[in-house]
Amino acid sequence: MTTNTRVLIRNLPKEKLAVTDYEVTEAPVPAPGNGEVLCQTLAIGVGAGARAGLQGSASYAGAPQTGIVMNAQTVSRVVESRAPGFVAGDLVICGSGWQAYASHPEKTLTKVPAIEDPAHYVGALGTNGLTAYFGLLRCGEPKAGETVVVSAAAGSVGHLVGQIAKLKGCRVVGVCGSDEKGARLVADLGFDATVNYKDGDFRAALKAACPDGIDVYFDNTGGDVLGAVLFRMNTFGRIACCGVVSQYDTSNPAGGPRGVPGLLVNKRIRMQGFLVFDYVADYANARETMLGWIRTGALRAEQDEYQGLAQAPAAFVDLLAGGNFGTRIVRVAR
Amino acid sequence: MTTNTRVLIRNLPKEKLAVTDYEVTEAPVPAPGNGEVLCQTLAIGVGAGARAGLQGSASYAGAPQTGIVMNAQTVSRVVESRAPGFVAGDLVICGSGWQAYASHPEKTLTKVPAIEDPAHYVGALGTNGLTAYFGLLRCGEPKAGETVVVSAAAGSVGHLVGQIAKLKGCRVVGVCGSDEKGARLVADLGFDATVNYKDGDFRAALKAACPDGIDVYFDNTGGDVLGAVLFRMNTFGRIACCGVVSQYDTSNPAGGPRGVPGLLVNKRIRMQGFLVFDYVADYANARETMLGWIRTGALRAEQDEYQGLAQAPAAFVDLLAGGNFGTRIVRVAR
Repeated sequence: MTTNTRVLIRNLPKEKLAVTDYEVTEAPVPAPGNGEVLCQTLAIGVGAGARAGLQGSASYAGAPQTGIVMNAQTVSRVVESRAPGFVAGDLVICGSGWQAYASHPEKTLTKVPAIEDPAHYVGALGTNGLTAYFGLLRCGEPKAGETVVVSAAAGSVGHLVGQIAKLKGCRVVGVCGSDEKGARLVADLGFDATVNYKDGDFRAALKAACPDGIDVYFDNTGGDVLGAVLFRMNTFGRIACCGVVSQYDTSNPAGGPRGVPGLLVNKRIRMQGFLVFDYVADYANARETMLGWIRTGALRAEQDEYQGLAQAPAAFVDLLAGGNFGTRIVRVAR
Repeated sequence: MTTNTRVLIRNLPKEKLAVTDYEVTEAPVPAPGNGEVLCQTLAIGVGAGARAGLQGSASYAGAPQTGIVMNAQTVSRVVESRAPGFVAGDLVICGSGWQAYASHPEKTLTKVPAIEDPAHYVGALGTNGLTAYFGLLRCGEPKAGETVVVSAAAGSVGHLVGQIAKLKGCRVVGVCGSDEKGARLVADLGFDATVNYKDGDFRAALKAACPDGIDVYFDNTGGDVLGAVLFRMNTFGRIACCGVVSQYDTSNPAGGPRGVPGLLVNKRIRMQGFLVFDYVADYANARETMLGWIRTGALRAEQDEYQGLAQAPAAFVDLLAGGNFGTRIVRVAR
């Protein structure tokens, strides 16, 4: 434990992100200051939302820059504590990013109980899972018997959204980019149907998969999928706007969907943008509920792993190309 | 009382509506059937939303057709009743449309108390006023000290939205299409500022008029105004989607605004479409509240009148061109 492997942002991508936009470097392990805690990264959560943070305009994550460690949520083990609330061995959720070690002020750490696999804390029990949980339940407000559609359905958030909606008694239709993923969502995760948005006949397939219309749409993508779903929404439908992954991997996002605001009026549709951070006061309860579901087998928290920090750029680029099924994590240490 | 003057739809307009799309005809006064009530029209409310009903695609108002009396909300006086709940002389709100007399099944009538000017029942106490009231308070949820922007601010709905927002302690900025209207909104109705959307510098003027951003937007227009407002919305802002007047007077509505859904996510904005009919259970209470405000002078219910049924087409065409200040009504009888 003398060197700290770090993955830095070398270039801010103009169009498609590439592995060469990152570089792997070595640095000394940072010594914790007074009130700080040195944490060893166990696993990194890789999410599409981080791509927005590399775009030219400032998002909620702040303006992008080069030469810094790539930002990410991590689950880490405390190695050395100079803060009263933590001791070596504690498990914490933190934002170490793509590096093996980081020192953090104690107030930025969330101590969590030891569980079977700590990597769940950057998946179903981390930002991805909480996003699925709060976005669906608080913004989507699904009721038993309703039809719920989720885009990027095989993704870290989407595969959990669909399963939570099933637990609430809904019919669940997933939109994803490959027939193979769609088949897995139905066979392994209990989705009622899936639609491949790359099909030329996507709109007709969506209609066929949703014979009673759509009551709740959990939108991870924006773009054409949102446009198509809008025309199938039922009266008093709810759209939880979670992300715009169709527009992340570019520096020139497209215009908005037809149907806004005309269809919103005619069908009394509610579109609600949200960020998971707004629900921080309820995180602990949500984690407890989700962990219960995982342990009973009611929820399958799919992990799609890469091994080692040097693979983090490839894990991210592949994710943006739609290569993942479930939560993309980079396993760094055990 | 032997002939019934009626204004029929002659043509469904392809682009701009014209006076010649209507024709004035005479017919016998309809005799009320059993359970029906013969009503004499006192005043007609003319609203931009009716233009949507003439478009090729079916809206919430149903598919358009020619040869029928133009649809409109009216306030009428009962002439003859063959229903137990009504007697001659009762004042009712009904949907007689552009004609002097109509027989209605009793269950389609809303009996209302006599007031100073019955025409308020197709204005501040009719669909227009209720739309302003419920859209602002239930979808916009304004809080004292917040900035509320309303488009078509000098219109039948908009001029009431702004005044109700002032009564709730908000800073109110109106968007309208003429400097003269803007000046009247400030001088006569207490708006804090107005912006003319026809100004080349509209976006800059909107920004200057809303130095603290926008918390609530009551959208009567959609289109470019919505697009501009979206970029000035504050975190956790609410957009009440009431209408799309920018897109009514055409058969080829434009696409949606940039910023949907990306800005909705980043700023956690809620867009909520609504129709006033969804709040029918609360109409009586709302009317009572609004009438109280009118009687104390807290609310100025502006009426912009045309006289006689033959003027109804001109009143509507002029309204669509932005000629009205306040509620456009056609006064038919006293």
